Amino acid sequence: MSKFYSKENLKFTLHEVFHVEELCKRDYFKEHTSESFDMMIEAADSLATNHLRTILVEMDRNPPRVENGRIKVHPNMGALMKMFGEDGWISMSAAHEFGGQQVPFTILQAVGFIMAAANYGTMAYPFLTTGAAHLIESFGTKELRDTYLEKMHAGQWQGTMAMTEPQAGSSLTDIVSTAVPTDKGYYLLKGQKIFISCGDHDGCENIVNLMLARIEGAPAGTKGISLFVVPRMRPDGKDGLEFNDVHTAGIFHKMGYHGAPIAHLIMGEQNDCHAYLVGEPHKGLSYMFQMMNEARIGVGLQATSIASAAYYNSLEYANVRLQGRKLMEKDPLKPQIPIIQHADVKRLLLFQKAIVEGSLSLAMQACIYLDTAATSEGEEKETNHLKLELLTPVVKSYPAEMSILSTSAGLQVFGGYGFTKEYMAELFFRETRIHTLHEGTTAIHGMDLLGRKVMMKSGQATMLLMQDVFADIEKAKQVEVLKPHAETLEQKLMALQELTMKLMGVAQKQGPEVFLSDATLYLEFFGIIALGWQWLKMGTIAWNEKQAGSKKYSNEFLQSKLHTAEYFFEYEVPKTEGLLTRLKSKNKVTLNTQPEEIL
Amino acid sequence: MSKFYSKENLKFTLHEVFHVEELCKRDYFKEHTSESFDMMIEAADSLATNHLRTILVEMDRNPPRVENGRIKVHPNMGALMKMFGEDGWISMSAAHEFGGQQVPFTILQAVGFIMAAANYGTMAYPFLTTGAAHLIESFGTKELRDTYLEKMHAGQWQGTMAMTEPQAGSSLTDIVSTAVPTDKGYYLLKGQKIFISCGDHDGCENIVNLMLARIEGAPAGTKGISLFVVPRMRPDGKDGLEFNDVHTAGIFHKMGYHGAPIAHLIMGEQNDCHAYLVGEPHKGLSYMFQMMNEARIGVGLQATSIASAAYYNSLEYANVRLQGRKLMEKDPLKPQIPIIQHADVKRLLLFQKAIVEGSLSLAMQACIYLDTAATSEGEEKETNHLKLELLTPVVKSYPAEMSILSTSAGLQVFGGYGFTKEYMAELFFRETRIHTLHEGTTAIHGMDLLGRKVMMKSGQATMLLMQDVFADIEKAKQVEVLKPHAETLEQKLMALQELTMKLMGVAQKQGPEVFLSDATLYLEFFGIIALGWQWLKMGTIAWNEKQAGSKKYSNEFLQSKLHTAEYFFEYEVPKTEGLLTRLKSKNKVTLNTQPEEIL
Repeated sequence: MSKFYSKENLKFTLHEVFHVEELCKRDYFKEHTSESFDMMIEAADSLATNHLRTILVEMDRNPPRVENGRIKVHPNMGALMKMFGEDGWISMSAAHEFGGQQVPFTILQAVGFIMAAANYGTMAYPFLTTGAAHLIESFGTKELRDTYLEKMHAGQWQGTMAMTEPQAGSSLTDIVSTAVPTDKGYYLLKGQKIFISCGDHDGCENIVNLMLARIEGAPAGTKGISLFVVPRMRPDGKDGLEFNDVHTAGIFHKMGYHGAPIAHLIMGEQNDCHAYLVGEPHKGLSYMFQMMNEARIGVGLQATSIASAAYYNSLEYANVRLQGRKLMEKDPLKPQIPIIQHADVKRLLLFQKAIVEGSLSLAMQACIYLDTAATSEGEEKETNHLKLELLTPVVKSYPAEMSILSTSAGLQVFGGYGFTKEYMAELFFRETRIHTLHEGTTAIHGMDLLGRKVMMKSGQATMLLMQDVFADIEKAKQVEVLKPHAETLEQKLMALQELTMKLMGVAQKQGPEVFLSDATLYLEFFGIIALGWQWLKMGTIAWNEKQAGSKKYSNEFLQSKLHTAEYFFEYEVPKTEGLLTRLKSKNKVTLNTQPEEIL
Repeated sequence: MSKFYSKENLKFTLHEVFHVEELCKRDYFKEHTSESFDMMIEAADSLATNHLRTILVEMDRNPPRVENGRIKVHPNMGALMKMFGEDGWISMSAAHEFGGQQVPFTILQAVGFIMAAANYGTMAYPFLTTGAAHLIESFGTKELRDTYLEKMHAGQWQGTMAMTEPQAGSSLTDIVSTAVPTDKGYYLLKGQKIFISCGDHDGCENIVNLMLARIEGAPAGTKGISLFVVPRMRPDGKDGLEFNDVHTAGIFHKMGYHGAPIAHLIMGEQNDCHAYLVGEPHKGLSYMFQMMNEARIGVGLQATSIASAAYYNSLEYANVRLQGRKLMEKDPLKPQIPIIQHADVKRLLLFQKAIVEGSLSLAMQACIYLDTAATSEGEEKETNHLKLELLTPVVKSYPAEMSILSTSAGLQVFGGYGFTKEYMAELFFRETRIHTLHEGTTAIHGMDLLGRKVMMKSGQATMLLMQDVFADIEKAKQVEVLKPHAETLEQKLMALQELTMKLMGVAQKQGPEVFLSDATLYLEFFGIIALGWQWLKMGTIAWNEKQAGSKKYSNEFLQSKLHTAEYFFEYEVPKTEGLLTRLKSKNKVTLNTQPEEIL
């Protein structure tokens, strides 16, 4: 079985780049240590290697299907859900009071990274359950907590996030599912939801949908959306379960991500779908954003996981596949060489490595901000929260977009074989394509970044993040081989600031349509800078480790970091030039072109 | 059924941009007229619409399979092959003396564009047969012509191009299939071939492989490769056929392109595989290059066809899918708008249109050079041949690379639905991924372009092509709205020339490894300029038509051309900036990174 991630690199990222053990000084995480984190990594590695990766291809070839109105998934999913529950994976980040272990979000995501690299589909089940349970923990009544958390944490009941509706898509404003109050403590719900990951399957006893709907008579728009628990089977009051009028209307057949089903659900066909309000009426979207923001970091990271699997898959092939000779070698009788010796194959590999390790580091950066914000008060909470908010659309979308290109580069390494199912390259290319779509398309995150986050609190979030970046630039300037890259990044940051100011002027003078028309490109520009930042950071640490004669990391490992940083600044950072030219242009071709002129 | 190409645009490209009717002044094409070309377009449209597009999804869901040692394809293929034959599609470009109609290569490819846009897999069968027959016409003995051409042209016998071997892949130098001479006029062949499109199927009576092999004792390397006709069934001398010891060892399961099978063939297991030499011994590769060069233009164009189908598919959706509101519209009770009104969706559509129409035009440009070279003598032949040679790697690879991004943009328009099989977006994204791989990977074409073509005959090819580009720049400068773009392209051309000179210096001082290490990026740079050229050309003509009050083209059509030209110069041409920065850099990170340092 080929390698699907680098444990050495993950540990380097957690320990050397982010000093994750520092989190253990915080009261909330005090029971953990650097060693206990490593043990979780080892356990996740073992689970991923022995139980998840082993069924990836099988799952791909046999996608979920509907049988008698229910969704059937891979036969191992039942045992796996039990394992995810009993071994504490689902509840690891929950508070002690809810039976959890209070593991930092950073470690939860690191563990998710390993599992998703092994088999993205399988890890969706427990991670969605964790997210849904977290919503009940945070905003649910004691009764809801008592009814749902234990079963969800045990992997007996599946949690989901049910937002999208056929007529609304990304436009949550237009949700029409309706909840009518009753005098019995529940609402009666009617509506449809689509694209519900794990919204129905036979790998567990029940499905607990955390669902958005409007209470009858609620205000229009996003201000009238409430959050409900809508189980497939509801407690019948006699220690049993009864059907809750949540029908599986169908399954979406898709190009990858075959490990998990995506369901179409219809609620209330018999007018008997009980929905239990979470928190206050009309505040559902703000609650859901807790889950969504965490899920968005997860999406960026899962895209990175798949890119990681594709990278090691192609690296292994490049080392063993013999083809061609050095360009100077004219003797056709000399043996062929491994293709990794060809410059362009190295380029394809370094590109993948730069995306994978850079994106992993960026996601961990966001996780550290999240854990810090979650366990602090006052200014520390506020500053970390702001940096997290600003970074979230970038962490979600840039790695997702780059994962398409990165898995494509992995496929390209295989030549003609890449298009075939002899190897897994094509599987990764298909699998990762979901990540620029779910949890908000890239366009939506671009608008979130430029339209909301960048100028949030008068630009404070941006200022705070820039301070962190400048601090790392200063450190990198001390390292001779990194100094030119540090200076480049400094210039790019200046350019970004100048551009942002310019765009703010556009917003004031020309309004939001013009201001946000190239927000997707702005996000890409920001993303390149963010990864450049992470590469400077990693490079600085690798250099210092190397100088100190590291005992933990091999010379090749550290040298590889430095080369990849160099690759990123040589090949990827220059892409900001074209983006900047466009972003500064006054031309408004996309706005000026009328729909009927696109034909 | 959604639109898969624009007939209006194809005719605009053929007639207004390239004045294809001018070819009819040449003796070889004198039987044709502008009207007869249009009739062929209409006939291809009808065939594609009624017979090819209708089975695309069905074919995708039911890929070819092996049964009892033979490959089974879609049941319609038998009737289709007959139709391709009887209606003259296979032989249309062949000379009268071989039963053909002497249709220009330009029109053959235009027809192929329509068919591939409808269903890429199905058109591979006749087009491969045309290419294989063309080799026999050009280099085969009278006996070979008499035996094979009629059946191939009739669609009764399938032609193939059989080059790749498992141990050699792209490295044709390392082909080991061996042909041992006999005294009976044929050779006995032993060897294996992989990735043979249509190398076996039950849609026709026989397979005629045009196969590369070494005659026993031949020189090593590419100088010892010969071309053979190796039929699956050979004439038995009694007006029948007998098995020629060509076994179907297997089929490659692949991520798309399910319409056509890709076979693994083993020849000579019973030491009874007769191979018939084509032309002279050891000259096989140069003969094969005739077919390969034509096939390479075809690949670029077929990638464009799939991008075209994806474009119209997403355009249709964008016009009908309601979601969200204008950013200024805060009233959630106002109706939702078609997503085509969102700036980022327009960007995704204009990007696709720019790639599709730009690439089509570029391919037609190459075809015109080819037809002109093929039907002229002396300087005209030489200059057109040189321009064609230079352009071929660009026409093959830039559209193939961009088709990945273009179909991906098409998929993105659909949001979450793009990942599902509800629409065809994911099919096109899978289907087109073969085109950067077969007929030479992009890396190989980059090296062909920079390492061979650019400086071919002391740079004469480059000089000649530049003259054509500069002439079109001058015309565009007369049009006010295009003048700034024309000036931009002029600058980019200067930058390209300067860069090329610089790289020639690198070649001399530092050798081929350094010189060619970023040839893939050089090809991308060249490709952007080439498409910019085509957009200037199309823009100039659209403007002039518009000014003249065109009766042939609607105002929207012409305005759309101008907007898309503007899009290309605003969003795509700036990408040359980052490429140039990297291409001028002295840093050699890919070369300096040792294989063991990629981990």
